[in-house]
Amino acid sequence: MKTTIGAFLLKRLRQLGIRHVFGVPGDYNLQFLEQIKEADGLEFIGTCNELNAAYAADGYARLNGAAAILTTYGVGELSAICGVAGAAAEHVPMVCITGAPPLHAMEQGWLLHHTLAEGNYDDMLNCYRQFTVAQTRLTPLNAVTETDRVLIACQQEKRPVYIQLPSDVSYLTIDAPDEPLVIPSHSDPERLEAALAHLLELWSEARRPALLIDMDADRFGLAGPLRQLVAKAQIPYASMTTAKGVLDETDPLWLGHYIGRSSPPRAKEAVETSDFLIATAPRFTEANSGHFSQSLPSAHTVQLGGRRTAIGGEFYEGVVARDLVEAFTERVGRVEAEAAPPRPQDGWIVEPSAALTQARLWPRIARFIAPGDVVIAESGTSNIGLTPQVLPAGTTYITANIWGSIGYTLPAVLGTALADEKRRHLLFIGDGSFQLTVQELSTILRLRLKPIIFLLNNRGYTIERFILGMKDAYNDVANWRYTELPGVFAPEGDFFVAQAGTEQELETVLQQAAASGKLSFIELHLDPFDAPDNLKKFGPATAEFDYGPRGPQRA
Amino acid sequence: MKTTIGAFLLKRLRQLGIRHVFGVPGDYNLQFLEQIKEADGLEFIGTCNELNAAYAADGYARLNGAAAILTTYGVGELSAICGVAGAAAEHVPMVCITGAPPLHAMEQGWLLHHTLAEGNYDDMLNCYRQFTVAQTRLTPLNAVTETDRVLIACQQEKRPVYIQLPSDVSYLTIDAPDEPLVIPSHSDPERLEAALAHLLELWSEARRPALLIDMDADRFGLAGPLRQLVAKAQIPYASMTTAKGVLDETDPLWLGHYIGRSSPPRAKEAVETSDFLIATAPRFTEANSGHFSQSLPSAHTVQLGGRRTAIGGEFYEGVVARDLVEAFTERVGRVEAEAAPPRPQDGWIVEPSAALTQARLWPRIARFIAPGDVVIAESGTSNIGLTPQVLPAGTTYITANIWGSIGYTLPAVLGTALADEKRRHLLFIGDGSFQLTVQELSTILRLRLKPIIFLLNNRGYTIERFILGMKDAYNDVANWRYTELPGVFAPEGDFFVAQAGTEQELETVLQQAAASGKLSFIELHLDPFDAPDNLKKFGPATAEFDYGPRGPQRA
Repeated sequence: MKTTIGAFLLKRLRQLGIRHVFGVPGDYNLQFLEQIKEADGLEFIGTCNELNAAYAADGYARLNGAAAILTTYGVGELSAICGVAGAAAEHVPMVCITGAPPLHAMEQGWLLHHTLAEGNYDDMLNCYRQFTVAQTRLTPLNAVTETDRVLIACQQEKRPVYIQLPSDVSYLTIDAPDEPLVIPSHSDPERLEAALAHLLELWSEARRPALLIDMDADRFGLAGPLRQLVAKAQIPYASMTTAKGVLDETDPLWLGHYIGRSSPPRAKEAVETSDFLIATAPRFTEANSGHFSQSLPSAHTVQLGGRRTAIGGEFYEGVVARDLVEAFTERVGRVEAEAAPPRPQDGWIVEPSAALTQARLWPRIARFIAPGDVVIAESGTSNIGLTPQVLPAGTTYITANIWGSIGYTLPAVLGTALADEKRRHLLFIGDGSFQLTVQELSTILRLRLKPIIFLLNNRGYTIERFILGMKDAYNDVANWRYTELPGVFAPEGDFFVAQAGTEQELETVLQQAAASGKLSFIELHLDPFDAPDNLKKFGPATAEFDYGPRGPQRA
Repeated sequence: MKTTIGAFLLKRLRQLGIRHVFGVPGDYNLQFLEQIKEADGLEFIGTCNELNAAYAADGYARLNGAAAILTTYGVGELSAICGVAGAAAEHVPMVCITGAPPLHAMEQGWLLHHTLAEGNYDDMLNCYRQFTVAQTRLTPLNAVTETDRVLIACQQEKRPVYIQLPSDVSYLTIDAPDEPLVIPSHSDPERLEAALAHLLELWSEARRPALLIDMDADRFGLAGPLRQLVAKAQIPYASMTTAKGVLDETDPLWLGHYIGRSSPPRAKEAVETSDFLIATAPRFTEANSGHFSQSLPSAHTVQLGGRRTAIGGEFYEGVVARDLVEAFTERVGRVEAEAAPPRPQDGWIVEPSAALTQARLWPRIARFIAPGDVVIAESGTSNIGLTPQVLPAGTTYITANIWGSIGYTLPAVLGTALADEKRRHLLFIGDGSFQLTVQELSTILRLRLKPIIFLLNNRGYTIERFILGMKDAYNDVANWRYTELPGVFAPEGDFFVAQAGTEQELETVLQQAAASGKLSFIELHLDPFDAPDNLKKFGPATAEFDYGPRGPQRA
């Protein structure tokens, strides 16, 4: 069929399930904004800046399976790139479209605004190449094949991709296929059979099977099949903190988080002494491994990754992990589930006038989280405080555990709330992080989304305090009147605002927020020198790792 | 002398005249923050995010001659990179220091947080390589030579440079020279003589000499020598809009801005028909050349650049432009200056109840600007409105004319105000741009700096409206209660806040702001569909250039 280059790209985005495109207008992309306006089922979500667009898209993709951002050349795309690199680190599929200068101007090296004015049009591509798995510059000659190549890579690899759309080619007519985009499978039947046979052989001798889940279980669609395997064969499972909430944390088979030497004993023993360990491409960083104290039984480990599968050290190219898990689940025998022990009655006793503490806040919050909630936890205190809490079944837990870019979660909740307006979205973010990306609260209000936002005011970068500079000014941030911000950003907005400094106040605002049916913005006052227990341990260990024996932490 | 790697780097920064380091703490740079605390004459300025740190450093360097930012690996440095690329585009010397992971972890490819967790430690370097003129990773082996190599390149080329400081080597002892850093001259005496002879030969036949100033005149220290040349030989001079304010705009020799076909006739004729044109490395982009309608007399043009000098097409390597100008000025004869005609009396008549318009606002503002002011003009309406206005002598005019990253100027004024607290700093920024980087108003207030900030509220991206989508929602931004922001960010702050929608209100607030001696935040209400005349022409021309004959602007 005849279409235009821009319309074809937009049709493909729709076929990936994308309904919203995040970004900021710029002269090199305005023509594409016109095309979005004309497209069915797609909406442009203007954010306050491009970094926030990328963070919003990251949050969106985690629920939606794909997301897109639209920036303008140079200034826009470079402003977004920290969020794009974050998507690469966290294995989030994101289509990064940049409205580029006219094709002839780029190919002839003209000096233009939004460039270094040196005639070099490779620099942005080179930059994005570091953090995306496919890159292209669309032209009338290549638009069909390149659009499809890049979008398939995005979905196959669950990583960001980069598309330059020159501003003068968007509206040019091309011949394009009618057929929807198909993401080809790469399962080789013989290799799949061989891997299955190998797996069954190991399984037949297994006495201590276990699963170790990392984030790729979520990203590559393995969570569902693994849930079925666990249910049928009653295999106990641990998760890495980087995959928190991917499998149910209330099941009797749940072992807890495996974090090397920092694991609960039950998880540590089950994982490290397993004779049949299915692990979904675990990536051990210093933060999720007890500073590299992990120990997997490599000869007995089945590695299920997005790119390849390995069984006891033998690599199987051409085996899609999901296909293997499904085939394996069919062949294993059903084991009767033990009746789950009755959950202990929840006897939370409020100490009404007690000041809020990190030790008491997070267990209380855990009881506020309901099945089906989307919990977005900022790096640092919030994520570290929530990680040990048991989440209800069906909760989605979102954090930037590996990338750890502070400020990520406020724009991310714009994305999650747009991706699924039916679920409840709970954001937990500290004041230091909030200040990086504060303006996106404006967009959340403008779109009348209704997350519950918990702003932890403790006057600074708490995680840094516990690493170095506990009382140093460089870890302080200005103390804003946070609860006035919703009114500044949305003078006509309908929202619930409250503060809490004691346990009773917290009880009251939790009830009010839950009942309000509105966007809720809750400022919690906490002591600057308080932290979750895990952070108190993590801080000094990180200082030792980072600064070594000559570092100032020894002073 | 014995010192540490970190202390040596800081000593070198001081020797470049740097007194403030902008940035955000992160675990990989906390140890260096300790070293900054211990250093004499250096202060860390914590910004709300890293992009704002880079913008602040850019503003700082424009007045101070050099600036430095400190970020943390991955997340921090990528957040800043749009501002670093902007410094590259605008020829601003900026030292970008990133606190990196421990050296052994990088060299052995360990998986760490703030990375893509793939063991690749070249990606950030590759990314920064696109936008900096020198890059290094400091180690105990190379710290002295590499620090000096990179800092010299920064000063020689007036471009950003990139330094990775692994977190575990900062405090290691090294042998370092006592001598201060010397930026070597690269003037070759024979080449300099040859160039001078060539110049004098051309000069002897010159009948219509002229100067055309672009930004390198400011960046490479040519402004002072050129001022002397102009005064001695009475050469008329034009400037590009990218060098606004570098030379005095009130001198009788001032021809106006040269912008190709959009120039005033006097400037156009003088430049294009000159038989002796000194041009300081002009870079013609579509925005400063009337969409590439410039026409220089190339056989009669003397190109004075940071990197090389060319006379009538002949290249002179090894000739420092400044040396050549000084030698030339000595040799030209003195011409008696004509008495400047008396300046017309300024008969500005206020129409008290008239709503503010772009046509009347900027001429009025021009009369508010006083000699010695630092004027910071955001890309778009503010810069386009101010460009045709004649600035008083001694004004510094700062904008991101080539890079054009919106949001730049609010953090930039943090930098300029810190660089020179004695001068008055006037910021002009539209609402759309302001929203990108709003949080840095907090830091400006926290440090008790006192710029006068004009926030132009016209409900959207005006420059984009005039290019495409005049009334389209994608060019709208949320309408905040802007004047409440200073109180939100600095509850105990001492500032002056006001709004103006009519000419009389403007008169009143200008008077009050000038008299207040406080940070002033003035919201100006303007019609969303009003624009400076130049923008009304520039918009449609840009649409034609960007979208071509098939673009939606033709619909």
